[in-house]
Amino acid sequence: MTNELTQQLDNLYRVIFSRRDVRSQFLPDLVPDDVLSRLLYAAHHAPSVGYMQPWNFLVIKSAEVKQRMHDAFMEANDEAKGMFEGERRELYSSLKLEGILESPVNICITCDRNRTGDTVLGRTHISDMDLYSTVCAVQNFWLAARAENIGVGWVSIVKQERLREALAIPEDIIPIAYLCVGYVSEFFDQPDLEKAGWLARLPLNDLVYYDQWGQQGGGEQSLAKQIEKDKDFPFDSTS
Amino acid sequence: MTNELTQQLDNLYRVIFSRRDVRSQFLPDLVPDDVLSRLLYAAHHAPSVGYMQPWNFLVIKSAEVKQRMHDAFMEANDEAKGMFEGERRELYSSLKLEGILESPVNICITCDRNRTGDTVLGRTHISDMDLYSTVCAVQNFWLAARAENIGVGWVSIVKQERLREALAIPEDIIPIAYLCVGYVSEFFDQPDLEKAGWLARLPLNDLVYYDQWGQQGGGEQSLAKQIEKDKDFPFDSTS
Repeated sequence: MTNELTQQLDNLYRVIFSRRDVRSQFLPDLVPDDVLSRLLYAAHHAPSVGYMQPWNFLVIKSAEVKQRMHDAFMEANDEAKGMFEGERRELYSSLKLEGILESPVNICITCDRNRTGDTVLGRTHISDMDLYSTVCAVQNFWLAARAENIGVGWVSIVKQERLREALAIPEDIIPIAYLCVGYVSEFFDQPDLEKAGWLARLPLNDLVYYDQWGQQGGGEQSLAKQIEKDKDFPFDSTS
Repeated sequence: MTNELTQQLDNLYRVIFSRRDVRSQFLPDLVPDDVLSRLLYAAHHAPSVGYMQPWNFLVIKSAEVKQRMHDAFMEANDEAKGMFEGERRELYSSLKLEGILESPVNICITCDRNRTGDTVLGRTHISDMDLYSTVCAVQNFWLAARAENIGVGWVSIVKQERLREALAIPEDIIPIAYLCVGYVSEFFDQPDLEKAGWLARLPLNDLVYYDQWGQQGGGEQSLAKQIEKDKDFPFDSTS
């Protein structure tokens, strides 16, 4: 393998393994326009079904709009607390799950399902493909942000209609992700929910099947062995 | 900016901008286990709502299973052709839209919506969050593959029930992406559909709003100007 390729791989895997869903560590420092522009270009270069590029990007800095979103989060989060019981409810209630007001900029990424007409190449048999394309844009944005040392937190505890109201998003546009974006004091070495003991990382080999659902190992044991061997592969995330 | 950070950014943006949806350029060369293992770890380290890690990975090398998938594609693609008219139909029919048989390995990434019970932290108000998490795993896989100089093509022209049959996927598991994976003769400098004149890349500034849906420029003109200035930002993809 060439040195250049090794370098490229090290960099990419470091970004992927050290990316975090940030809630508590936002700093108030402004994100410069040239950085935001690069992040948006990264999102815009996601794959899209039939090349429809169904996304829009709402860049939110208004304190009033952020406050409306925070109110919407609080309302939904109170409902959510009631859905867990006993110790889980206590643990849930102790978690910080968003950084809407502390992060200097919020970005909402939406999907316009009608952008290129009713019939879309590649969406003819799986109708959600345009939503999936928009999620690919979210993930590009997130990884580019991590490479820029910028934290991103995805806020999903909010009712869609309250989100639409806060941002004046029309009925036929699907909000996909509401992201809190900003520099951070640190990136944790583990996901927040793993650290908090909510759930543990699953062993990758348990999730991999061969040729048919549920079929493990067998003629493909060499890959299963490699996966076991690589189990400490992810880089230390402190970069 | 430090040299290390600049290098990290150059690498990541190069990967993002040169990633392609590959259909025609697959080589028969085997993808080694150590590479496949890294790609699967990259996917497994995607963000997931409530840390539920709802994904499974089916690694498909069986010629028989690939043939079944190819048959399922052909059937759906014949239907799809009939949905376009005139010149569009002709253009559609001329496009190669999958590389199922030519690529040495296919990967199906699925979503198990019941993995951690009914109530999932962060999925309480937006029920599709687990599907979106799985798409993030797809995009991690795709970008890691590009960094490894491996091409990926997402086959979406297939009926879900035929895909389930071919891979014995149970009813309660949602297939999210069927990917053709392999080394390639080249990565094109533009997406196939852009090259073929199907649709053009949209100007990013047309897609960016400020604080409210539909609101452009205004107090945020500095970002709009930066985006305009950066319009040739994406790296030349030939790396």
